[in-house]
Amino acid sequence: MEKVLASLITIGDELLIGQVVDTNSAWMAQQLNDAGIWVQRRVAVGDDAGAIRLALDQEGALSKIILITGGLGPTADDITKPVLAEYFGGRLIVDQATLDHVRYLFEKVFRRPGPMLERNLKQAEVPDVCTVLFNRIGTAPGMWFEKEGRVYVSMPGVPIEMKGLMQEEVLPRLRARFVTPRIEHRTVFTIGAGESMIAETLVGFEAALPGEIKLAYLPHYGMVRLRLTATNVDSGELDAQFAALCALVQDITVVAEDLSMEEYVGRLLMERGKTLATAESATGGNLAHLVTGVPGSSHWYMGSIVSYDTSVKESLLGVPHDLIESEGVVSEAVVTRMVKGLLDRIGADYGLATTGIMGPDGGTPETPVGTVWVGVGNREKVRTQLFKFRFNRSTNIQLTSVNALNLLRLFVLED
Amino acid sequence: MEKVLASLITIGDELLIGQVVDTNSAWMAQQLNDAGIWVQRRVAVGDDAGAIRLALDQEGALSKIILITGGLGPTADDITKPVLAEYFGGRLIVDQATLDHVRYLFEKVFRRPGPMLERNLKQAEVPDVCTVLFNRIGTAPGMWFEKEGRVYVSMPGVPIEMKGLMQEEVLPRLRARFVTPRIEHRTVFTIGAGESMIAETLVGFEAALPGEIKLAYLPHYGMVRLRLTATNVDSGELDAQFAALCALVQDITVVAEDLSMEEYVGRLLMERGKTLATAESATGGNLAHLVTGVPGSSHWYMGSIVSYDTSVKESLLGVPHDLIESEGVVSEAVVTRMVKGLLDRIGADYGLATTGIMGPDGGTPETPVGTVWVGVGNREKVRTQLFKFRFNRSTNIQLTSVNALNLLRLFVLED
Repeated sequence: MEKVLASLITIGDELLIGQVVDTNSAWMAQQLNDAGIWVQRRVAVGDDAGAIRLALDQEGALSKIILITGGLGPTADDITKPVLAEYFGGRLIVDQATLDHVRYLFEKVFRRPGPMLERNLKQAEVPDVCTVLFNRIGTAPGMWFEKEGRVYVSMPGVPIEMKGLMQEEVLPRLRARFVTPRIEHRTVFTIGAGESMIAETLVGFEAALPGEIKLAYLPHYGMVRLRLTATNVDSGELDAQFAALCALVQDITVVAEDLSMEEYVGRLLMERGKTLATAESATGGNLAHLVTGVPGSSHWYMGSIVSYDTSVKESLLGVPHDLIESEGVVSEAVVTRMVKGLLDRIGADYGLATTGIMGPDGGTPETPVGTVWVGVGNREKVRTQLFKFRFNRSTNIQLTSVNALNLLRLFVLED
Repeated sequence: MEKVLASLITIGDELLIGQVVDTNSAWMAQQLNDAGIWVQRRVAVGDDAGAIRLALDQEGALSKIILITGGLGPTADDITKPVLAEYFGGRLIVDQATLDHVRYLFEKVFRRPGPMLERNLKQAEVPDVCTVLFNRIGTAPGMWFEKEGRVYVSMPGVPIEMKGLMQEEVLPRLRARFVTPRIEHRTVFTIGAGESMIAETLVGFEAALPGEIKLAYLPHYGMVRLRLTATNVDSGELDAQFAALCALVQDITVVAEDLSMEEYVGRLLMERGKTLATAESATGGNLAHLVTGVPGSSHWYMGSIVSYDTSVKESLLGVPHDLIESEGVVSEAVVTRMVKGLLDRIGADYGLATTGIMGPDGGTPETPVGTVWVGVGNREKVRTQLFKFRFNRSTNIQLTSVNALNLLRLFVLED
């Protein structure tokens, strides 16, 4: 079976001046991959007719499916629609269904006072050579073009609108239009060994893999996910290879699934009917933010005391002033008291606490930037660990969060 | 003066299967833009020799500067280095300085036990036709190639390593190698009006702008940044145009600078010598996370009580149980008591509180997903506002956070 190849084209000067991080492409690639479509190139170009046409020519020569996002807004720099109309030999006409929807959005949803602007009404114009795809959430519709056996789809760049269009319109139509291979993934999530150490362990395994199964290393903040991707392979064979892989990395495995650390910890707590609270100084609310990002976390997460100011460690966590003076605020003694104080004040089964210097300022020769104490405990005992990170502020915060959750994971498993 | 054009090439299957969001490109584009270099294309390709060569050919035909990231790791799928060696007609040789550095990192920084692996030693091999750029943080050095008046630079994809190389080696060399125009930006940060409403206000201004000054609209979670970019323009003229722009949008202006909402709020508090604490239910620690991401926030931010579980609203914020029962946990009465309880417990000048339903679960007919109450106050008074968002969980959390900080901003300004 021939591989169905796709290219993504993203349009907008904001991507070229670096004002916006492109999160759309990763999401789109994931969805296409799951549908058996292989994204071979992603290209970003500016709001420039020549650059857009060149990208359409180049990607059309390489791929069967070309998905285009961006440049469909109401302002003067948005030129994707007229450029596509010209490229596919059509002219712009008003689409009545889109016009009704634009009016509905402005009157009932956005509730804008006054008459609609000409530029908003123009959102309902589409090239007469495309199939219009309904955008439930926004004013710019999707547009589906076909040319020489290739499919080109244009969507707005607003993530929530693009995602709605992809799920409701584009993916079902692509599945119907192309015969795609069956792609399956299996992922094992590890922590505690670097990419090159793991690769060394897997040399023989990787060499013996059949050609239809590929192994990928996906490192992220000290964690490494190992992913097998099988194309048109019997599930039983993939399962056997995955079992072999898991056996080789069992010492460093968190879970043989594609979960985030916070999702896994949440499941562990749910299964055991236990609850968690956090006391955050170094991580400044990031642990709470990660954990509450998991749907359903209200079943097992109670809350956090973000004791950013030292006085809050004293008043809300009951860490003695003298202890902070004698041991220093970044110390094993203080993090231990943070856990105890937390559990006294929030009636959770487990408490997790962080204190450290995240940078760029605040380091001293004894306690340089990147020094962090993490503590985890229950009513009976507290376990602590010292970390020394050597990165920038935001990376230090992320690494502290992941390692704190990992310490919690180990504590819960042994409890 | 001729525009100096650049292309970015990102190499790695992980970008094409959507496992990784590319944050490097935005940062690189920003830095290049500030150096007077215009990024005209960004291309991502897989770990495939043919695809890499095609991208080098295509981008080399369009740009003077081609910056390449990724594919320099120690595992078998990393093929960038041999492909570049072949493409530029060189062969791989050991670079002694890099080898010494790799050894130093393994022995002194990573502190790996046992002998170094062959695959790690290979990191010190470079094509003999490039200038080696020292990577202080990691094992893979940067590589600078020249061909037919064009510069090609290869860097690792690990963000912190790429950034170090760009700042210490690549940008200084590019500035020395190319004559670039002087690019200046002026940004005004607005909230409260959509892109199309602002565009309507600015029709005349935009039409009258000289060709060397461009206006960009940069919307982000209900905020819109308006950015003027001037190429080889006298600063005085740019300032005059910027003043005219600011006058037109003054009713919706937060600040005439490129700051985040949390940076601006932090500055406001610093200037007034005031402090902030937060009580977060809906935002689940995201306010604390945003605020503590601002370097120096420890001067004005005291901390947060993340009262995710209702019992924590009662125990730590002193919201009466009866009030929660009678008014509902997402209510004006509860958010008002959260602010008061917060200020009683954390001795801050201002308190900011959120309670709401972020989705996907937890909505009811009376309180659907996206309903949020925000409260802000000091010892004398509390102001509240009801929001109704209609997005997914993570977008609802971000929108709540921005709007809460905006409510705080207005309260502080009027205080």
